[in-house]
Amino acid sequence: MTTEPSTQTKRTYSYLGPAGTFTEAALAQVPEARGHTWHSVRNVGEALADVVEGRSDAAMIAIENSVDGGVSTAQDALATMPGLRIVGEYLVPVQFVLVGRPGTTLDEVALIAAHPVAYAQCLRWLTESLPAHAHIPAASNVASAVGLLDGTSDADAAISPPGILEHHDLTLLAENIGDNANAVTRFVLVARTVAPPPPTGADKTSLIVELPDDKPGALLDMLEQFATRGINLSLLASRPIGDALGRYRFVIDADGHVEDERMADALLGLRRFSPKVIFLGSYPRADRAIVRYPERYSDDVFVEARDWLRGLVSGEPEA
Amino acid sequence: MTTEPSTQTKRTYSYLGPAGTFTEAALAQVPEARGHTWHSVRNVGEALADVVEGRSDAAMIAIENSVDGGVSTAQDALATMPGLRIVGEYLVPVQFVLVGRPGTTLDEVALIAAHPVAYAQCLRWLTESLPAHAHIPAASNVASAVGLLDGTSDADAAISPPGILEHHDLTLLAENIGDNANAVTRFVLVARTVAPPPPTGADKTSLIVELPDDKPGALLDMLEQFATRGINLSLLASRPIGDALGRYRFVIDADGHVEDERMADALLGLRRFSPKVIFLGSYPRADRAIVRYPERYSDDVFVEARDWLRGLVSGEPEA
Amino acid sequence: MTTEPSTQTKRTYSYLGPAGTFTEAALAQVPEARGHTWHSVRNVGEALADVVEGRSDAAMIAIENSVDGGVSTAQDALATMPGLRIVGEYLVPVQFVLVGRPGTTLDEVALIAAHPVAYAQCLRWLTESLPAHAHIPAASNVASAVGLLDGTSDADAAISPPGILEHHDLTLLAENIGDNANAVTRFVLVARTVAPPPPTGADKTSLIVELPDDKPGALLDMLEQFATRGINLSLLASRPIGDALGRYRFVIDADGHVEDERMADALLGLRRFSPKVIFLGSYPRADRAIVRYPERYSDDVFVEARDWLRGLVSGEPEA
Amino acid sequence: MTTEPSTQTKRTYSYLGPAGTFTEAALAQVPEARGHTWHSVRNVGEALADVVEGRSDAAMIAIENSVDGGVSTAQDALATMPGLRIVGEYLVPVQFVLVGRPGTTLDEVALIAAHPVAYAQCLRWLTESLPAHAHIPAASNVASAVGLLDGTSDADAAISPPGILEHHDLTLLAENIGDNANAVTRFVLVARTVAPPPPTGADKTSLIVELPDDKPGALLDMLEQFATRGINLSLLASRPIGDALGRYRFVIDADGHVEDERMADALLGLRRFSPKVIFLGSYPRADRAIVRYPERYSDDVFVEARDWLRGLVSGEPEA
Repeated sequence: MTTEPSTQTKRTYSYLGPAGTFTEAALAQVPEARGHTWHSVRNVGEALADVVEGRSDAAMIAIENSVDGGVSTAQDALATMPGLRIVGEYLVPVQFVLVGRPGTTLDEVALIAAHPVAYAQCLRWLTESLPAHAHIPAASNVASAVGLLDGTSDADAAISPPGILEHHDLTLLAENIGDNANAVTRFVLVARTVAPPPPTGADKTSLIVELPDDKPGALLDMLEQFATRGINLSLLASRPIGDALGRYRFVIDADGHVEDERMADALLGLRRFSPKVIFLGSYPRADRAIVRYPERYSDDVFVEARDWLRGLVSGEPEA
Repeated sequence: MTTEPSTQTKRTYSYLGPAGTFTEAALAQVPEARGHTWHSVRNVGEALADVVEGRSDAAMIAIENSVDGGVSTAQDALATMPGLRIVGEYLVPVQFVLVGRPGTTLDEVALIAAHPVAYAQCLRWLTESLPAHAHIPAASNVASAVGLLDGTSDADAAISPPGILEHHDLTLLAENIGDNANAVTRFVLVARTVAPPPPTGADKTSLIVELPDDKPGALLDMLEQFATRGINLSLLASRPIGDALGRYRFVIDADGHVEDERMADALLGLRRFSPKVIFLGSYPRADRAIVRYPERYSDDVFVEARDWLRGLVSGEPEA
Repeated sequence: MTTEPSTQTKRTYSYLGPAGTFTEAALAQVPEARGHTWHSVRNVGEALADVVEGRSDAAMIAIENSVDGGVSTAQDALATMPGLRIVGEYLVPVQFVLVGRPGTTLDEVALIAAHPVAYAQCLRWLTESLPAHAHIPAASNVASAVGLLDGTSDADAAISPPGILEHHDLTLLAENIGDNANAVTRFVLVARTVAPPPPTGADKTSLIVELPDDKPGALLDMLEQFATRGINLSLLASRPIGDALGRYRFVIDADGHVEDERMADALLGLRRFSPKVIFLGSYPRADRAIVRYPERYSDDVFVEARDWLRGLVSGEPEA
Repeated sequence: MTTEPSTQTKRTYSYLGPAGTFTEAALAQVPEARGHTWHSVRNVGEALADVVEGRSDAAMIAIENSVDGGVSTAQDALATMPGLRIVGEYLVPVQFVLVGRPGTTLDEVALIAAHPVAYAQCLRWLTESLPAHAHIPAASNVASAVGLLDGTSDADAAISPPGILEHHDLTLLAENIGDNANAVTRFVLVARTVAPPPPTGADKTSLIVELPDDKPGALLDMLEQFATRGINLSLLASRPIGDALGRYRFVIDADGHVEDERMADALLGLRRFSPKVIFLGSYPRADRAIVRYPERYSDDVFVEARDWLRGLVSGEPEA
């Protein structure tokens, strides 16, 4: 007897690999992915193409603050590839460790293998703690460490995510060596278009919205659609559309779920207002923070207002 | 055989009388009132009480720019008396005539009977044309003329609305003697709560709206409900609520009908936003001017947006 | 020796007379008018023309909730006659008394002289207390009472403002007989253009503003000018301009004084935005209520921001 | 005779090196940097610290769409390091070339040296044109190519920016091999706080603004400051402040110069509204596009409004 899914029902998840990356750490947070096939790819475009073309059921991609790069690419891909939907959000702290072969000590470290972006983010610690070190570039935050073990690297140590220790027999030489102790990367799990998971009270809705024209008031009119329904935004970013000078799309994360009355109403308003609204999904927030909103924007108030309007039109005397 | 309504179906219309007032001229514009009972009353409160208490089927009252007075009273009455609904709008030019007994000529006029408010509005013409005249007050714009004929008045002439000539055997001495040639009074026909007449494309919706609190932003938030649905306002006026310092209600006429999608949506927004929204009615505009609005606020756009939202929630791939 | 002003310095004040009207009661609240010439006129137009043409130094006119009529006329006159400025505001309760010749008692009253508008406002009391009475119209709220004494009226009693008892030897038969116990008329004192009186902290600024065009957003943009500076409005009313269909001007009373930084800034914004802004004046509020506003709109904040901006442009390092 | 600056006046410019990077290509666009000292650093933090601590006169940093990474870091650094000011903007197309040692041909290429981020961005071309290739990571987009020449790399070819060919004796094997032909990185030149360069009519103003609190309306109120002065935004992005959940700062690029009246007025409004406004600078746009705005926001209109207000306060009759 086993809890393993049978072959027939095995699902495939694409992620920026190899095993040990921050993206894999994000995927490891997905309970329903356990025991299924994890397919390592080389960039965001491959991951999303796997989903669109049916090779994978879902892809984990970095969408904000990534140290693996590719965030603009991911946002632009979601804006232009139809048929995708975000179904979950995951946060991974951007913490780096310095690891060596078993038995290595910190004072033996002279040559350090590291992905160049990770290297740049640990420069303060390296300058203070190992001022005489040299750097040898690695293709990823995992390849840096794997090279120590498979004989392809001359390095004495490697910079990697903490998860590397779960996959390989390595010694921890130092932890939390990144310059920014609070950095967190936000990941989203992307599937083909499906019905959103049910509301949890702690949800987020992701959208991409184009403005009807380039006048300053259009942005305000768009944001009014949220404000007049008591909806807070946790992400708002303009991105040039690229087809003509001065046209922008807006990447938006709004607090709440499409099945919340106020969010549904805001989406109707956006749809009527905007030449293009892409609904990327409603899904539980990674931080599980319950969405707070003024009582006057609760579902009850929307239902009551519709009843009232029906009464007006039918000619019933008001209560 | 006759087209007269039978006694059983006779309806009663209350109006500020007596016959010959501007209010009667407004009532004369109502085709469905012809042949029914017209009940003359002495002020707006009596007229509306007749409707609420079932003595009349409808009341004609002045609501803007009245020379018979009582506009604030009418607005406040509509804001506080439940169970009423505006079902039609009528415009009457505020034109005055000077009339005398048959055979009178203008140079014989020394003493003029006139309602004091009408007298004040004709003062420029009187000063220029009859500088030596004297004024004797009358109880109404009709009583002034009636007194000439029934022997109760010593006056040589009277100031009245032009309609007086249809009711009484009087000589026209001068017309258009009012100081403001363009003045128009707006009247509304008020019934008990009924379903609104069907949309005509040239409709108006009258509302009274209270703001949630006294902060400046609340007024803007209220007006946004119209602006973000492309709805123009033809009347906006603050009125002190009177229950506490600094609280206001707003008397609003908005272009469109409650059965227009954009107006229904705006009313839903208002209802959710405001502690009190009184829907006074949707009815054809007196000027029959077709309501213009940007194409993006048409009914089709609302219907399409709802279809789109249903698709999102059900998980259908976007077209 | 006397405190009377000398003939040389005597000022003239025009008001809707004769002595005893509500307008005279408003003028009686003006300390600096005492001992000067009070010139009784017959309507608002005459009063304002006196000022514009130099026959009077100031005119007292009803601007809101008047029972003497003429409010629309007054608003329109202020919108179209240049060279005028409001310098003070006064409130007069709309209370009526029933008066008779000395020795008269209430049970002797059969025929009542009253201005028709006042009569309509006392109808509830009259119907309850003197159901059998008859009405004879009077030219004004004062003429009704004067006629009892000078032998020109057959009436037994008259409806007048309470002030009538200070001018004439009459007996009070009943007081507070108006239907609306809380009604108050707002008056303003209007002079030729002068510098505004200094700020008192309890001031009001009156404006008439036209919108740049007929789109719904224009009204919001106009009101933003106040809201973004923390300025509350105590009066907002649309008035048709009359030169073309669907154009409106707005009559506005805003809390604060033109010499308050936030009001000055809002006026600059309005002037840039609107095709026509008429500044009617900044003057102490009749109710002497201190204007409250968020601390972030205080004069200090405006001065500090200007200093900051100067620093930016000059290239000083920020503090 | 020479146009070289003398040693005494030599300025130092920090940039993400080494020579040949996209950042160096941006610095090469700065006429006044020619002939001065270019100081290569390893990340944005080093570059800005050079300026703040006086080791350099200015730093060139990527601020949008960078393939060298570090954009969030740059934005956050500008938000938190005082004493900096942007003085210029530069655009560099993100184009990659494949280069080899002199004499190499494309069909000889098996092993490719590339910075991992650049490698990921050329994956489509590589998969189609060189399906059998292998990748060896490089520390930067320049190190990849330099390694071919100095004997430290076994690679047959390298991926680099086109500028590499100006610095090294290499053979061009393929150009425009990046997946996104239109990608452009935006760079800014950052100096210590100085007076802004004079307006050119084609300017941009960069700001970082915090909102007074977390309510949805605050964002709208902030954006109103621009919209009500006719100012268009070309960049708007929220960034978590990081000190508490749900607080954001906004990175803004606005069309126009602080010495334009409408921008100065908007900055005053922002300063009064926001708990923190960081003025990063006004500088000529890289694209030299003249800023368009409605005539009613021109400098003349602001000057005229101030004159009008002065007249109101002094009591001059209006013209």
